[in-house]
Amino acid sequence: MAKLYFRYAAMNAGKSTALLQVAHNYEEQGQRVRLFTAAIDDRFGHGRISSRLGISREAETFDNGFDFEAALGTGEGLACVLIDEAQFLLPEQVRQLHRYAQTRRVPVICYGIRTDFRGEPFPGSIYLLALSDDLEEMKTICLCGRKASMNTRVDQHGVRVREGAQVEIGGNERYLSVCARCFYRG
Amino acid sequence: MAKLYFRYAAMNAGKSTALLQVAHNYEEQGQRVRLFTAAIDDRFGHGRISSRLGISREAETFDNGFDFEAALGTGEGLACVLIDEAQFLLPEQVRQLHRYAQTRRVPVICYGIRTDFRGEPFPGSIYLLALSDDLEEMKTICLCGRKASMNTRVDQHGVRVREGAQVEIGGNERYLSVCARCFYRG
Amino acid sequence: MAKLYFRYAAMNAGKSTALLQVAHNYEEQGQRVRLFTAAIDDRFGHGRISSRLGISREAETFDNGFDFEAALGTGEGLACVLIDEAQFLLPEQVRQLHRYAQTRRVPVICYGIRTDFRGEPFPGSIYLLALSDDLEEMKTICLCGRKASMNTRVDQHGVRVREGAQVEIGGNERYLSVCARCFYRG
Amino acid sequence: MAKLYFRYAAMNAGKSTALLQVAHNYEEQGQRVRLFTAAIDDRFGHGRISSRLGISREAETFDNGFDFEAALGTGEGLACVLIDEAQFLLPEQVRQLHRYAQTRRVPVICYGIRTDFRGEPFPGSIYLLALSDDLEEMKTICLCGRKASMNTRVDQHGVRVREGAQVEIGGNERYLSVCARCFYRG
Repeated sequence: MAKLYFRYAAMNAGKSTALLQVAHNYEEQGQRVRLFTAAIDDRFGHGRISSRLGISREAETFDNGFDFEAALGTGEGLACVLIDEAQFLLPEQVRQLHRYAQTRRVPVICYGIRTDFRGEPFPGSIYLLALSDDLEEMKTICLCGRKASMNTRVDQHGVRVREGAQVEIGGNERYLSVCARCFYRG
Repeated sequence: MAKLYFRYAAMNAGKSTALLQVAHNYEEQGQRVRLFTAAIDDRFGHGRISSRLGISREAETFDNGFDFEAALGTGEGLACVLIDEAQFLLPEQVRQLHRYAQTRRVPVICYGIRTDFRGEPFPGSIYLLALSDDLEEMKTICLCGRKASMNTRVDQHGVRVREGAQVEIGGNERYLSVCARCFYRG
Repeated sequence: MAKLYFRYAAMNAGKSTALLQVAHNYEEQGQRVRLFTAAIDDRFGHGRISSRLGISREAETFDNGFDFEAALGTGEGLACVLIDEAQFLLPEQVRQLHRYAQTRRVPVICYGIRTDFRGEPFPGSIYLLALSDDLEEMKTICLCGRKASMNTRVDQHGVRVREGAQVEIGGNERYLSVCARCFYRG
Repeated sequence: MAKLYFRYAAMNAGKSTALLQVAHNYEEQGQRVRLFTAAIDDRFGHGRISSRLGISREAETFDNGFDFEAALGTGEGLACVLIDEAQFLLPEQVRQLHRYAQTRRVPVICYGIRTDFRGEPFPGSIYLLALSDDLEEMKTICLCGRKASMNTRVDQHGVRVREGAQVEIGGNERYLSVCARCFYRG
């Protein structure tokens, strides 16, 4: 199980819940995990992983300058590394984590989205998708009933926005998960 | 997405959490779901789906006499059926749910374990595995670090038990999820 | 990778082709594999694995009395065991193979169908589904365009048959792979 | 089933065999498919999809200027589009195929590798991984017995090469599929 995992989904599929569950599974067996989330995502407070089901928990944060290898050390006594909002990793950080999982034999499980509101991949997601030893989709639903796999951004009136910066932190009020058919139909 | 799904895992992988998350995803979009759990499993009170993360919620219950087709009706206005402890379904009930999902076009998502403490399949699981249109494993870990896929039963002294009734309701104190290698090694 | 795998599919999905490809992948690297098929299936000659693409190859055969543990020995120098028509395994043989893969650390990859023409599981498939460490569906298509997951039997006039013996060896002229929706609609 | 699929694997996993099998499955039911491969890959002759098992077949070719939407038309009477060597698609071509699958309701199944000999993703693979509605890994093995997921390039003496152009067409004599652990260890 010492591999790099990428659990990807559209927004609001339950990625943080799944991450917190895995942490619980390890800790219940007396094993030690480390949790990370992106410093940039402060919707729920800095360094906090929050599930829409109402559970939340503190986590370490990473930003562009963060050195995972230095932070994680030899991996001695570490059962698992869990990373939320992993689309915000830099390509070099993903490479670092892949090498770490494989050579230190500690599973690294990343949760994130694949593409932004324009359907363009995040730099971190590109490398997570290209290198992960195990890709698994977490499913959620589009309003039309199909599987949502894309994300759209809306303005304050709920109107779909098609241009703008890739990163704009927001929740349900700014983003809508949709299936690919609805994404292209507009 | 109108299919029969079986999400299987060893005990304590987080199946109930995942079920409650899916219910939340649907309801957040204003869609209606129905939740079921086995009447026989009253660890957390009759008709209650409880996650080890601390979330829980009421559910309808099924027993051997329960008629899902009668209970679910035409499926009009129903977005999804979610069933916990699905290993306790009867074979006929699984067939009923498969036909229902396919002909009424309502997704039915079942969560359960595959085998008992002797490595023998539950009658309901046999048909869930044989008929489901979509099988997905939820992973948890063995004490040895490998993926747990089997369940063992222990007595009050923590000693492994190899004979007894297939069904004996209990939680962490009676059951231990293990990988197949540890299962056979004893 | 030393696990029990079950690659299941409706009939005519390309299971034998996939098996022959895996054998080729191992042998191209100078590794040794052993191939088995059911003695009962003599459509292409006794002990022959044949792909509808036109490739075929000799294989050892198993019947109800076959002892895999005795036949496979310690696993020394053996890279992989490949079994076609695995639905014809006995439950005890599946258990044997599971234990073998896990304790001798030789991957065992089984290919087979889940259910018969009535939608009833084969005894071997029940245990393959219940015990395999890795389940993967191979997809093929129904005439209606959906994924075929069920099998139907037809008589010499092409009329669907609903009763009869579970096992009746035959190919395209006796069996039709269909999706679950078409299966129930008849 | 009208989705964009990406079946990815290291080199020499059997991708072309799988593609030819799917084509056969459709055609056996009297349905029409179209096959494409990269013009740049002329190892087996221009416009030819060849399996290491010895089967091969003609295919249309795509290059950077190829317009899939124009070539495929309305999709009327077309059951499936199959694309080999899909890592050589341009990002815009992947987008085109995704939109085509979703709006014309014709499944598009792409086969390709994720990363080059340096572990860098191909531009086409980036978009296939980011947009595909269904990702599935095809597995092959490293000499060490683990799952191979990466590719290495060797020179004429069998020595690993770490720098050079991303694309250099070659087969078994130039490329070796390895697991991530062997990839990083060198």
